[in-house]
Amino acid sequence: MKLIIAIIKDEDNDAVSRSLTREKFRVTFIASTGGFLRSGRSTLLIGVEDDQVDKALDVIRKNCKKPGESKEKRATIFVLNVNQFTQL
Amino acid sequence: MKLIIAIIKDEDNDAVSRSLTREKFRVTFIASTGGFLRSGRSTLLIGVEDDQVDKALDVIRKNCKKPGESKEKRATIFVLNVNQFTQL
Amino acid sequence: MKLIIAIIKDEDNDAVSRSLTREKFRVTFIASTGGFLRSGRSTLLIGVEDDQVDKALDVIRKNCKKPGESKEKRATIFVLNVNQFTQL
Repeated sequence: MKLIIAIIKDEDNDAVSRSLTREKFRVTFIASTGGFLRSGRSTLLIGVEDDQVDKALDVIRKNCKKPGESKEKRATIFVLNVNQFTQL
Repeated sequence: MKLIIAIIKDEDNDAVSRSLTREKFRVTFIASTGGFLRSGRSTLLIGVEDDQVDKALDVIRKNCKKPGESKEKRATIFVLNVNQFTQL
Repeated sequence: MKLIIAIIKDEDNDAVSRSLTREKFRVTFIASTGGFLRSGRSTLLIGVEDDQVDKALDVIRKNCKKPGESKEKRATIFVLNVNQFTQL
């Protein structure tokens, strides 16, 4: 089990979250800010089986708009090992 | 040391957070949303010693209401290994 | 790669975040609450190379005000191993 923490731009959140949900990923959304100007970021928590990490990253990649002139990254993604996973 | 990331329903947050605090766990609360309808979720961060993980999970379990008709889970819990822990 | 999750007091956030940014660390800010009185906390996510962890912790340490009479900690910091790191 892995926990994906994806930090994306607010404007990409709708497309990314809908696409992840459509593909049966469970997404938790946290409002956040980042960057020099503290602009809006969406921090997504996504718990996935190990063999689903690539698919989830692919969905995120395809649904983030390409960076424009700005050098700012469109998404920063951390994949963490999960020691124990429980659902109630 | 472990970091427990517990995603629970907002309506369970009060009971869960109070009970964890009463048992001397330190809880950080983050407002979030999740699920198909983007309903309210409480994301809790709880740092615990390895031998306290089960106790913390037990407190969470006992204080989440049982799922009703809905198939939605009441809680999603990730336990992560902590590489380094510091308090100032 | 490491993910630093730093939970600090709101009043320290400005100094800590500015200093981290000045030192070229990338910081994501999440509003949160914690402690007995559920007072304001800033949860910071900072992705860093392994050899930059100490420097980042040092910046946080130097920019949190010293605890006063209260026994409350000024900062709680978790350093997590990152299994996979991607930027788009």
